[in-house]
Amino acid sequence: MERERTFGEGFVTDDEAEAIYAFAAKLYPICRSITGNGVRETLREIGALIDLDVHEVPSGTPVFDWTVPREWNIRDAYIKNSRGEKIVDFARSNLHVVSYSMPVRQFLPLAELKKHLHTLPEQPDLIPYRTSYYADNWGFCLPHRQFENLQDETYEVLIDSSLEDGFLTYGEHLHRGETEDEVLLSAHVCHPSLANDNCSGVALLTHLAARMVGLRTRYSYRFLFAPGTIGAITWLAHNEARVGLIKHGLVISMVGDGGGPTYKRSRRGSAQIDRAVVHTLRHSGSTYSDEDFFPYGYDERQYCSPGFDLPVGLFQRSKFGTIPEYHTSADNLAFIGADHLALSYRLIVGALDVIENDRVCVNTMPRCEPQLGRRGLYHAIGGLKHAEAANMALLWVLNLADGSHSLLDIAERASLPFDVIYRAAQLLELHGLVKDLNASVR
Amino acid sequence: MERERTFGEGFVTDDEAEAIYAFAAKLYPICRSITGNGVRETLREIGALIDLDVHEVPSGTPVFDWTVPREWNIRDAYIKNSRGEKIVDFARSNLHVVSYSMPVRQFLPLAELKKHLHTLPEQPDLIPYRTSYYADNWGFCLPHRQFENLQDETYEVLIDSSLEDGFLTYGEHLHRGETEDEVLLSAHVCHPSLANDNCSGVALLTHLAARMVGLRTRYSYRFLFAPGTIGAITWLAHNEARVGLIKHGLVISMVGDGGGPTYKRSRRGSAQIDRAVVHTLRHSGSTYSDEDFFPYGYDERQYCSPGFDLPVGLFQRSKFGTIPEYHTSADNLAFIGADHLALSYRLIVGALDVIENDRVCVNTMPRCEPQLGRRGLYHAIGGLKHAEAANMALLWVLNLADGSHSLLDIAERASLPFDVIYRAAQLLELHGLVKDLNASVR
Amino acid sequence: MERERTFGEGFVTDDEAEAIYAFAAKLYPICRSITGNGVRETLREIGALIDLDVHEVPSGTPVFDWTVPREWNIRDAYIKNSRGEKIVDFARSNLHVVSYSMPVRQFLPLAELKKHLHTLPEQPDLIPYRTSYYADNWGFCLPHRQFENLQDETYEVLIDSSLEDGFLTYGEHLHRGETEDEVLLSAHVCHPSLANDNCSGVALLTHLAARMVGLRTRYSYRFLFAPGTIGAITWLAHNEARVGLIKHGLVISMVGDGGGPTYKRSRRGSAQIDRAVVHTLRHSGSTYSDEDFFPYGYDERQYCSPGFDLPVGLFQRSKFGTIPEYHTSADNLAFIGADHLALSYRLIVGALDVIENDRVCVNTMPRCEPQLGRRGLYHAIGGLKHAEAANMALLWVLNLADGSHSLLDIAERASLPFDVIYRAAQLLELHGLVKDLNASVR
Repeated sequence: MERERTFGEGFVTDDEAEAIYAFAAKLYPICRSITGNGVRETLREIGALIDLDVHEVPSGTPVFDWTVPREWNIRDAYIKNSRGEKIVDFARSNLHVVSYSMPVRQFLPLAELKKHLHTLPEQPDLIPYRTSYYADNWGFCLPHRQFENLQDETYEVLIDSSLEDGFLTYGEHLHRGETEDEVLLSAHVCHPSLANDNCSGVALLTHLAARMVGLRTRYSYRFLFAPGTIGAITWLAHNEARVGLIKHGLVISMVGDGGGPTYKRSRRGSAQIDRAVVHTLRHSGSTYSDEDFFPYGYDERQYCSPGFDLPVGLFQRSKFGTIPEYHTSADNLAFIGADHLALSYRLIVGALDVIENDRVCVNTMPRCEPQLGRRGLYHAIGGLKHAEAANMALLWVLNLADGSHSLLDIAERASLPFDVIYRAAQLLELHGLVKDLNASVR
Repeated sequence: MERERTFGEGFVTDDEAEAIYAFAAKLYPICRSITGNGVRETLREIGALIDLDVHEVPSGTPVFDWTVPREWNIRDAYIKNSRGEKIVDFARSNLHVVSYSMPVRQFLPLAELKKHLHTLPEQPDLIPYRTSYYADNWGFCLPHRQFENLQDETYEVLIDSSLEDGFLTYGEHLHRGETEDEVLLSAHVCHPSLANDNCSGVALLTHLAARMVGLRTRYSYRFLFAPGTIGAITWLAHNEARVGLIKHGLVISMVGDGGGPTYKRSRRGSAQIDRAVVHTLRHSGSTYSDEDFFPYGYDERQYCSPGFDLPVGLFQRSKFGTIPEYHTSADNLAFIGADHLALSYRLIVGALDVIENDRVCVNTMPRCEPQLGRRGLYHAIGGLKHAEAANMALLWVLNLADGSHSLLDIAERASLPFDVIYRAAQLLELHGLVKDLNASVR
Repeated sequence: MERERTFGEGFVTDDEAEAIYAFAAKLYPICRSITGNGVRETLREIGALIDLDVHEVPSGTPVFDWTVPREWNIRDAYIKNSRGEKIVDFARSNLHVVSYSMPVRQFLPLAELKKHLHTLPEQPDLIPYRTSYYADNWGFCLPHRQFENLQDETYEVLIDSSLEDGFLTYGEHLHRGETEDEVLLSAHVCHPSLANDNCSGVALLTHLAARMVGLRTRYSYRFLFAPGTIGAITWLAHNEARVGLIKHGLVISMVGDGGGPTYKRSRRGSAQIDRAVVHTLRHSGSTYSDEDFFPYGYDERQYCSPGFDLPVGLFQRSKFGTIPEYHTSADNLAFIGADHLALSYRLIVGALDVIENDRVCVNTMPRCEPQLGRRGLYHAIGGLKHAEAANMALLWVLNLADGSHSLLDIAERASLPFDVIYRAAQLLELHGLVKDLNASVR
């Protein structure tokens, strides 16, 4: 514990929270997909705030069982009715076009057009979000109410897209710590105008990386901004040899709404990151959801595949797939808020604080209690009815600092926040009553 | 998984269920005890349907701490009142005579007679079932209402029985599988006219054995029809050297009523048979009772004695000893039904399906997920809100097929029926994404 | 089990319970502190009933991180008002003086006096109990109601105490058993006129020690009467080499009130003493509280410090610090009762009975059940609906007596009282069906 405390309580000012929101809002209009200029523009915006290594991986590159796909770009798209009116227009919402739609320009009757239209009958005013990455296809998404009112006439459809050999693009930022052991923080950058999913996560991680500049840490922190699934797979394929350095990790997505918080544990189930996040949530005063791992979701699917089995969990507010706004045009900038981003930030940083500062200490006077009173560490007048939490933290650390319990272990056993236990250990170390084994835990 | 699925979902037609009931009804009138012609006749009826090795073990044979008793047979028995009327008649119900009653013919006053009468004061219309195997004794059982109306007169009692050196008789049927490892399925054949206890179990197992003829199985299946306690003890004593082949087992009794289902775990508590039965019950849609082992009950007492500690549980519908019909004349053919027998059959076979088909598979592409889409194993259009159970089963198998989880382990972790996981593994194997380690589990 | 049962059911007669109460009452008026003549007088009273080795440890002796303090004695103390009336008088209650108060004689105005007064505003009629062992200080304790009515005048205070080099005094009684392995029973003797805390514990242990004279036991029993904290620390420092002999232990305090019972587990959490006490409580018919270890309380803090980690729990009725009488003048002789002491005695002795008599037995006929009937150990007439607890105990012992389960293990698994299992094992041993492995457990 010779190093200064790294993260503390995860404090974030109102201004910072507004800045995170503003950055999410800046990213929101960009038409992202798993490849293409939307990803590049997003990474350029991130790169304006933090050092970012941008990687371009050519189409056709084999990555495990997958192949980097052709690059998709889109300039314009619309459906015109027989009067030449644009009734669906990509310029108004990039959700209108199924991602990875082939280029198309044709006239077709309503019956034919309908085969290419996607709607949400139960949410008739919303545009759904649809993709067709690995099937040659094209399509439009629109509100069901509009769909139902379509006249039986001839429509002109245009999708001015290109699907050609190019690159898959992702960006990395590395905060170097004292050791090469890494904490992986990963956010997907492939969804178009969906504010919570995942402009929120990208903005939060960018802010965290910027704020950590100059901070002395035990771990190195790797921030990964990559398209979902194929991006994580590509990164893992290109970094297979160094994946063993990842000691802890979080996938960050959907952190701007007021739901949850929701934590989905890593495949290991009780990795230190799992314990750190759940401990932080338990003492946060928020209700929260603590979910076991399941093999569906975001890029934790790849990090937790059995050949890697990395200790990477998923931090969210609302759980994906469970809220009406999910993957619809209702996931817009009104759905996320600076206050929600601030709480998400505090909780994530609170968990990283545990990871970063957890230590194994040993009691230097393990036989009987040391005399706290003569060191001014205890009530001078005994016999009081109630011991206080601070006293209890000192006693818990002394009692469990036997070389087999880390500070997090002690905090869990004592049902006290890590922060309280950490400060107690610091105070005891100052008085020579415990010493740091200086060993990483787990 | 190169072999065809053995049991499937335990389907049983209405005709089959009726056939099981009819066979139980055929066995019902026979006066069985732990030895004698009633057992022989029962085994003859079983032997008419399946190959059965019938063993005759002489009285006096030492079997562990016990000795095979003398053989008991009975031809007639009655109590006549002073007017010569048969007021209790063995010909009307074989429950009227205490099993193993010594031969007797005498005249006695009511007071003396009463010392030999057994009734159920709280169920005054029912005849109790009583035995006196190891004490020289005789007695009659009758409804308490009749007992209370007995006049103070002289009665003639006759029990035309014999208790002489002879044999203990039991039968075995072996279904040979690919390995010598055995599944033991055991039913007691010593109770007289009690339909549920255990004509039901005997009929169900006979039907199962008949239906398995010609079926290719991994395990060999040993069907044991033996008198309770002394029969199981005798079988264990004569098969001590090969008991190690028994990898799983079930005692089957009281499977014809509408209660439960009730499963009592083996002494081991979480043997694979315990997990397979409880898994099957959990996904059956029935309410059920999952009970820890206790050292009282049917022949699992012997199989689970500490010197054997076999993984043998007890499958029942109602739990023995807990229902008013238990060990009374109310356990008759009206108390059991073909529909109940059918459900019992399905659940037992469902559990055997798990035992027989559980396997350890390994993911051949364990790093990241394989691309299910290009194999047609996944939705071509992504972004749908809800993943389906079938998709989830594929993902669970891929994620946990790491060599340390069997399909049952995966099914339990995924909270999905074994059948769904099994089919997912089959599909993945077909596509080369998992392979069978071909090793027995546990 | 060749030895006679040691403790049995912890029977205590009404006369014995009254004797325990009377002895607590005799100790009550003595002004004890962590050193001084009050402790000596208390030990003299104990020594009048049992053999007691009294140890005197000089002031200044280093004991681990502590130093044996100067000896404190007090003869008189009062506060006089300006009319010379003793408004607070040590002679009326020794709680009036803060323990370890320096000698003082001075006149001071109310404002100055108040800095040395301690009250309980929320319990305005009670005198609090306060100490100031390791800070040079003096003070008085009084009812808040009296404090509020103090006039603004000049007061004379006198504390005729001495705080000089002397000794710390403690007493030990050893009951020698067949082995040197010890059970430690420890009660603090440092509190002045507090009846429950801990005249009750001292009286109970003294009675137990007296009653055990001549009793043949497996374990040796060490009774320790020492001042809290510094006394236990001193004892541990002087007995460090033999601490390993302590196999089980209990701190006994506050055992005379009607609350609880409360058991606080040892740091190990499931040491045999923990299991024995909780088992006894579970089958006692009392509601009770089973608490995890926490590093605050009585001398279990020292015994359970990480350098010792002894299997020592804390047995109480009400939990310290949770009742309004705690550390006040309301903890008087009316607060404790002979009936409560009797129940505490029975529960403690019940747990010691488990510790003393727990054994590992092995079934001599482990394959199948032995034939209990021919040994008269079972119902001669079978088929009864309900097995009785006694039968079940026999069956549980036979089933689990496989060399890996002690009688306590069996009692816990069977949910039957240790006593019932013990008697079943005795009966089976008599019939040669189990034999004692003669090995200590745990």
